[in-house]
Amino acid sequence: MSVVPSPKLGQFLEQQRARVDRTLEKLLPGAEVVPNSIHRAMRYAVFAGGKRIRPVLCLEAGRLFRDNDGPLLPPASALELIHTYSLIHDDLPALDNDELRRGKPSCHVAFGEATAILAGDGLLTLAFQVLAESPDIPPERCLRVNRELARAIGTLGGMIGGQVADLEAEAKPPDARTLEYIHASKTGALFRASVRTGAILAGAGEGDLKKVSVYGEKVGLAFQIVDDLLDVVGSREELGKAPGKDAEHEKATYPALYGVEKSRAMTAQMVEEACGALAPFGEKAANLKEIARYLLKRTS
Amino acid sequence: MSVVPSPKLGQFLEQQRARVDRTLEKLLPGAEVVPNSIHRAMRYAVFAGGKRIRPVLCLEAGRLFRDNDGPLLPPASALELIHTYSLIHDDLPALDNDELRRGKPSCHVAFGEATAILAGDGLLTLAFQVLAESPDIPPERCLRVNRELARAIGTLGGMIGGQVADLEAEAKPPDARTLEYIHASKTGALFRASVRTGAILAGAGEGDLKKVSVYGEKVGLAFQIVDDLLDVVGSREELGKAPGKDAEHEKATYPALYGVEKSRAMTAQMVEEACGALAPFGEKAANLKEIARYLLKRTS
Repeated sequence: MSVVPSPKLGQFLEQQRARVDRTLEKLLPGAEVVPNSIHRAMRYAVFAGGKRIRPVLCLEAGRLFRDNDGPLLPPASALELIHTYSLIHDDLPALDNDELRRGKPSCHVAFGEATAILAGDGLLTLAFQVLAESPDIPPERCLRVNRELARAIGTLGGMIGGQVADLEAEAKPPDARTLEYIHASKTGALFRASVRTGAILAGAGEGDLKKVSVYGEKVGLAFQIVDDLLDVVGSREELGKAPGKDAEHEKATYPALYGVEKSRAMTAQMVEEACGALAPFGEKAANLKEIARYLLKRTS
Repeated sequence: MSVVPSPKLGQFLEQQRARVDRTLEKLLPGAEVVPNSIHRAMRYAVFAGGKRIRPVLCLEAGRLFRDNDGPLLPPASALELIHTYSLIHDDLPALDNDELRRGKPSCHVAFGEATAILAGDGLLTLAFQVLAESPDIPPERCLRVNRELARAIGTLGGMIGGQVADLEAEAKPPDARTLEYIHASKTGALFRASVRTGAILAGAGEGDLKKVSVYGEKVGLAFQIVDDLLDVVGSREELGKAPGKDAEHEKATYPALYGVEKSRAMTAQMVEEACGALAPFGEKAANLKEIARYLLKRTS
């Protein structure tokens, strides 16, 4: 099974990642700006690596409806600020207590807990600031994205809700419904919101938005299951952290509930359903489909 | 010196507090809503008491420009969600390590650290959701408020920046510039943003906004200095927590730098300057002026 994207997709992803990184570089206060401990911590966490997959999906969903994705770069990058905030807080000792993230010390290990908590807060706040500062996009669309995104990362079926449910489910026997709630809210909701953000800002109509949402939801869920699988079958080198953490914490995961093979088959089916939802967009959706299939085969 | 508001002001503040509380009651998910541990924690922290001073100032600033303040209730209440989020995170063991808040166990003592961190995140996120959901207000105004508020509570001269500077300044000899930066950003910025939020949403012009901003800034700074003073001269019963915490942590405070009497005189002058800025509004600003003078004399 291939573990790197095809040369053409690889080049495209790398280009998009670089554009997002340049945007993040501009959005984040410099490491020397007062009070600098927090700005250093925010930059450390954001630039620790990462595929920028949520911004890339956002841009690509936008390009279904408008060719020039330039104005979408700041809001797309705000999604990465949100993702990074969630990682910093999840890694804290009181939560998942992860000391490594992408092969480097977690934010709280590098900067202390107080700074890490506030750096997460700062990234979330900056994301909402960026989302409200898009002069080239009609205000109604910006406002709708703010509203939807806040719901997607909130406590009611959103990212925070998923994280809480995940903590509550530790050391309980996993059941299918709880597990789907956790994954759909913890990861799926932000993936869904990422593609919706791009599509809404680019002016998509309601019918098209629905198709894009199905894609985002299914890809997000598959992405999280692949994460679960990598924690079982991945290596420390590839993951940049110790595998086996989920089993150690008795986390509710797909491999724990369904086994490795069945979980793999489920992700493959989800990705095909995700791609199917984009059929009406034809060739314009080729990248989104290829990205979904690549995410299935990733090893980190 | 009187420690309760005049009967008329007292009644007015109580009425407004009740309206804000009813709005918060509607905005917050019920304590039984899944995942309920976080919703219980969010409600516990929001309904632990409090004067709702930021929402009241927001509503009152709005009433300078429009009589019906009904549509301002949700955004005004969002300011209280933000304030509560900041208290929860500030009280955490890694930050100020305060076990009591308003006479009750802090959120992390009552619900555990993980839930408290996520409850803070949830309140901040809900605030931005509410701010983006105001159907009766023109979207441009909502978006501007989002933008300004995110800056006011961010890392660059905003609330988080003030909190970081505060932590960095512990156990260093206080100097006047650092102290003003800390207070202006930690408390002043949200007060300023609170009155600006009301004024912007109610359609104030730029000139009027400036006057209102001066009021908010000065009242915010005075409010924080009174907080510092209460930590020196207040009683455990009135404060609902142990006094003397600032001295124990060697915090940079006004009484530590200027002494109690000089600090008191400074707050009195700030409040008079704040009221002076509202002179052009005449009788319409009577409540705002009375509130500022009352805040000076509060004992908790």
